[in-house]
Amino acid sequence: MAHKKLNIGVIGAGRIGKLHANNVVNRIPRANLVAVSDVNLEAARELTDSLGVKDAYQDYHDILKRPDVDAVLICAPTDLHSPISIEAAHAGKHIFCEKPIDHDLAKIEAVLEAVRKAGVKYQVGFNRRFDRNFKKVRDRVQAGDVGEVHIVKVTSRDPAPPPAEYVQASGGIFVDMTIHDFDMVRYLTGSEVEEVSVFGAVLVDPAIGEAGDVDTCIINLRFKNGALGVIDNSRQAVYGYDQRIEVFGSKGCVTADNETANNTVLYTADAVTKEKPLWFFLERYNDAFIEEVREFADACLDGTDTPVGAFDGLQPVKIAIAAKKSWQLGGKPVIVE
Amino acid sequence: MAHKKLNIGVIGAGRIGKLHANNVVNRIPRANLVAVSDVNLEAARELTDSLGVKDAYQDYHDILKRPDVDAVLICAPTDLHSPISIEAAHAGKHIFCEKPIDHDLAKIEAVLEAVRKAGVKYQVGFNRRFDRNFKKVRDRVQAGDVGEVHIVKVTSRDPAPPPAEYVQASGGIFVDMTIHDFDMVRYLTGSEVEEVSVFGAVLVDPAIGEAGDVDTCIINLRFKNGALGVIDNSRQAVYGYDQRIEVFGSKGCVTADNETANNTVLYTADAVTKEKPLWFFLERYNDAFIEEVREFADACLDGTDTPVGAFDGLQPVKIAIAAKKSWQLGGKPVIVE
Amino acid sequence: MAHKKLNIGVIGAGRIGKLHANNVVNRIPRANLVAVSDVNLEAARELTDSLGVKDAYQDYHDILKRPDVDAVLICAPTDLHSPISIEAAHAGKHIFCEKPIDHDLAKIEAVLEAVRKAGVKYQVGFNRRFDRNFKKVRDRVQAGDVGEVHIVKVTSRDPAPPPAEYVQASGGIFVDMTIHDFDMVRYLTGSEVEEVSVFGAVLVDPAIGEAGDVDTCIINLRFKNGALGVIDNSRQAVYGYDQRIEVFGSKGCVTADNETANNTVLYTADAVTKEKPLWFFLERYNDAFIEEVREFADACLDGTDTPVGAFDGLQPVKIAIAAKKSWQLGGKPVIVE
Amino acid sequence: MAHKKLNIGVIGAGRIGKLHANNVVNRIPRANLVAVSDVNLEAARELTDSLGVKDAYQDYHDILKRPDVDAVLICAPTDLHSPISIEAAHAGKHIFCEKPIDHDLAKIEAVLEAVRKAGVKYQVGFNRRFDRNFKKVRDRVQAGDVGEVHIVKVTSRDPAPPPAEYVQASGGIFVDMTIHDFDMVRYLTGSEVEEVSVFGAVLVDPAIGEAGDVDTCIINLRFKNGALGVIDNSRQAVYGYDQRIEVFGSKGCVTADNETANNTVLYTADAVTKEKPLWFFLERYNDAFIEEVREFADACLDGTDTPVGAFDGLQPVKIAIAAKKSWQLGGKPVIVE
Repeated sequence: MAHKKLNIGVIGAGRIGKLHANNVVNRIPRANLVAVSDVNLEAARELTDSLGVKDAYQDYHDILKRPDVDAVLICAPTDLHSPISIEAAHAGKHIFCEKPIDHDLAKIEAVLEAVRKAGVKYQVGFNRRFDRNFKKVRDRVQAGDVGEVHIVKVTSRDPAPPPAEYVQASGGIFVDMTIHDFDMVRYLTGSEVEEVSVFGAVLVDPAIGEAGDVDTCIINLRFKNGALGVIDNSRQAVYGYDQRIEVFGSKGCVTADNETANNTVLYTADAVTKEKPLWFFLERYNDAFIEEVREFADACLDGTDTPVGAFDGLQPVKIAIAAKKSWQLGGKPVIVE
Repeated sequence: MAHKKLNIGVIGAGRIGKLHANNVVNRIPRANLVAVSDVNLEAARELTDSLGVKDAYQDYHDILKRPDVDAVLICAPTDLHSPISIEAAHAGKHIFCEKPIDHDLAKIEAVLEAVRKAGVKYQVGFNRRFDRNFKKVRDRVQAGDVGEVHIVKVTSRDPAPPPAEYVQASGGIFVDMTIHDFDMVRYLTGSEVEEVSVFGAVLVDPAIGEAGDVDTCIINLRFKNGALGVIDNSRQAVYGYDQRIEVFGSKGCVTADNETANNTVLYTADAVTKEKPLWFFLERYNDAFIEEVREFADACLDGTDTPVGAFDGLQPVKIAIAAKKSWQLGGKPVIVE
Repeated sequence: MAHKKLNIGVIGAGRIGKLHANNVVNRIPRANLVAVSDVNLEAARELTDSLGVKDAYQDYHDILKRPDVDAVLICAPTDLHSPISIEAAHAGKHIFCEKPIDHDLAKIEAVLEAVRKAGVKYQVGFNRRFDRNFKKVRDRVQAGDVGEVHIVKVTSRDPAPPPAEYVQASGGIFVDMTIHDFDMVRYLTGSEVEEVSVFGAVLVDPAIGEAGDVDTCIINLRFKNGALGVIDNSRQAVYGYDQRIEVFGSKGCVTADNETANNTVLYTADAVTKEKPLWFFLERYNDAFIEEVREFADACLDGTDTPVGAFDGLQPVKIAIAAKKSWQLGGKPVIVE
Repeated sequence: MAHKKLNIGVIGAGRIGKLHANNVVNRIPRANLVAVSDVNLEAARELTDSLGVKDAYQDYHDILKRPDVDAVLICAPTDLHSPISIEAAHAGKHIFCEKPIDHDLAKIEAVLEAVRKAGVKYQVGFNRRFDRNFKKVRDRVQAGDVGEVHIVKVTSRDPAPPPAEYVQASGGIFVDMTIHDFDMVRYLTGSEVEEVSVFGAVLVDPAIGEAGDVDTCIINLRFKNGALGVIDNSRQAVYGYDQRIEVFGSKGCVTADNETANNTVLYTADAVTKEKPLWFFLERYNDAFIEEVREFADACLDGTDTPVGAFDGLQPVKIAIAAKKSWQLGGKPVIVE
């Protein structure tokens, strides 16, 4: 073949690592999967076997030191995102890193610095930007179809709550869940969040409250460009993953709705029923997961900018930290640093 | 005819007075319009003439002293709502009063006291409760269809901003516009608002800002029953009156959408177009304006409770006062007294 | 009052007579109800009493001979439509007649002749033309929004089948039910039907088949202007009255959907449910029933053309006769005379 | 790898051949593309090169004689479908053949016979059965959700007409376009078509009429199980590929709508706009094209029945022949042999 392909190593063979590995092999023609690593070597091996890939390692350094590896997808636990990112940058590999880069701003800054110095590509896994509906909303906003943005609204509700232990480890709802929404409002408005104010509540699972977190919240946002925003989150929408957005401005309003498995409608003597929203992120953002890595591969091969840079990994964490502080202060507005 | 009808006098022959007078004559079989008063006698006379009603007065006392008048609809300017209400109560008339009763809590309390003592019926003109869609949402919530309420959302945007002078006279957006939404969230949740936090902005018309008000705002709410809420307001939705609600709870979510003039859809080479939302409150709440007075007449004739009592006129004003304070404090949460 | 009102007598106090009488009294300001007649005098009396109207008669001639009666609404059984129409024309009354004028073309022609000679207004009760959705479709077609019409589609299904005896008396599905659809396609296309071809079946109730009729059918149409059309009918749509239309042309397509009691949507763990279509014609065409008589009154008072003339009463019967013949011939195309 | 893959040869490197070849390589993990043939060798070579496949041939016999080829996808011109099918069957290859197998019933019967004798798998390319919406409708029907089927409706309109020469070669609208709809109604109802009646017209392009075909038609259907059906076709829906279905029965109705590129809605002062239907079959049935070959591969590898057998290739041609005859007879009903 005439076209060069991007040789990719996947670090971490958990749920999201498997997903990306599969997509690289089956859905992204310009990328090759050359190796997978996982501290659980068996998991790595099982994944490479299933995909007809030769090399599985226990130690991700074995991937980093291979000269034929052009890029890595970091799908390891969050606390390893920043150290692996830095090492990968030093090794000259392009980097796709799952979100969040870290919860610690200093560590993220160190990643940004390393990436800048190494001159490698860096992309953060904010997959929702690649959802066809949300992308179209953003395109409309950028095209001026709604004029100046006045209000941006994000509805973001998970279908089922995580165990309380997860919440304790993750850093809480603002860092593990709302962070996607913080990225989304930046993406949609093209403006930075200046100030947040949060009302939170424990309405789904008391254990989440005991773990020091909330499971339901409404987040008021003020943007640097003057616009306002609001995000509402719940850990449990029993009807499925509820992911909708709306941007309202001086010339109009644009909305994006949930996706469903199909568009059939059933009329009976009892009711008129439509399909429920797709169940969770693997279903809803299935295509977005492919598209984000496809565009990452394109950026690496073509020398263009990645669609979600390292700076885009930093900002939502700053907002999340401010949001958490506002919640702890009972809703007092907090300036985003 | 066998059935007694309710004899009604309308006080104030402005836009809303005309609307109610017309509905009483043409749409509410159990009510008679017997007189209209307005400081502008000509306006009152024109209205009675057009409706085939005999008596027009300049002084509303002429209505209050007629023994054949059972009830009055108070459609005078806001600052007259409370004094007329008190006089009408003393005169033993049932009272339907446009919202808000007053901006001053003490004056509203005086009305409540007078009404209580006189034992007359009192209804406040929160017409949106009678919208078929919103009413159905509330019925669903009350029937337990969404379980315990976790989040209530109100989108409420006017099609065009009022002149800045209006805003100065009205007491501002929270009292003249959001007050309907404050009533709506109480109606939907069946719970009182405990705390509000407001981000406001002047994005539509600088003159509104110079008049000391905002034209765009997002209002975070915490209810006594633990639920959270959010209202977003704009003085200018160029596509028409945007009035939508959503109640999310432990067992599901129920939504109500805008109304349109018809449900046709046009498919052309350029676009697929639907009808815009109905333009403003006279169009959207046309049926609701009839229904509220119909139910008021029923309550008076049948001796049942009015669907929106005097207390329901008091609470939204309290919330509005707290909201204004929160906005003045830059979004700091404020407890509703 | 300055404006003259139209004095109306209602002939027939059955379901549809009651409906119109109520509307005249409560919803149509330019019309007065002065009398009601019914062979069952008690029924007429009950209706006038409930509406505060003075005169009830057993014999409709008592209405026709009153000089103060300007117009009559003929709501008697179908076989009396044409003789009463002719007598009313002779008496110089404007006439609103429920559909169909008759099943017999010669009798309809006689009505047309009498009306023409007397120079009175005549309107046939094709109420669906006044449905806000269908009217908008027609306006779009007339405005050229879909270009030249190529295909018109009507879905028309009743919620529950009539008793077999009704079908025997009515003349069958084509005359008692599809006749509305035949009017609708003329209204939408502005063209006459030239040829019909019908496949019919008995799928709902065998008794209907034994009575010599079908309960399910699909009717192919060819219009004089070259367009094609299709109507599908069923006597039983268990989810409610299914009334939808679609006009497809060289520049696009326009559709009108069913109406529902409200636009709420409920999302639960089980399903996403919308409201069912309104149950039957009294619910769906409630506003259309008012509008058609309002426009009739306007035409009589203002001397303008009625919106559905006597000729519009004739043509659908011709199509119905051809349709029935096609069905009897097993679907062979039949030319409309 | 543990799992055996199906080795596939693609015969014909035109638009549809390219599509399938690409899907086999990139989207169907259980299939290998081993060779492509085309009378235009350069076209075959270009396709294999672009996909990293080794062998390109001018003569499809070179594919048939390779023992490592398990199955062929026949994407050659229609007149070669039946001879290649028969040769492939003799060669013991499983066969996926684009629709229609042929226009000549005897030739199709010969294919069926050859396939039966050889005991190979045979699938016809009725891709629409694999559309997620239509499949769900069928699942609903089979599950009894609409009870006994009374009426099935198919709207099927292409976005732009083919050149008149195409129509002459193809055998006309019934064989090249409606044949998909004939398959769809069989699929949805699970019943055979017994009788058809067709009204056709030339409203889009006079050249199509001069070529002896129609470009607009409505087809009435009667099924062996008593149900009725209707298909409406147009060669030109300027707003895009219009593909909708509806199945109505004793217990309700189920509908499937068009697909759009995204579900965003834009509200402006001018209009409320949604996305248009996807432009044509390559967009709308993109996933269906993958799914049909995936299921074909599964059937071949797992020894199960193909989801659309050779008999399913025969029946729609019979209906198309009857439809054409009905049209030629001016709409007279014609029995399907």
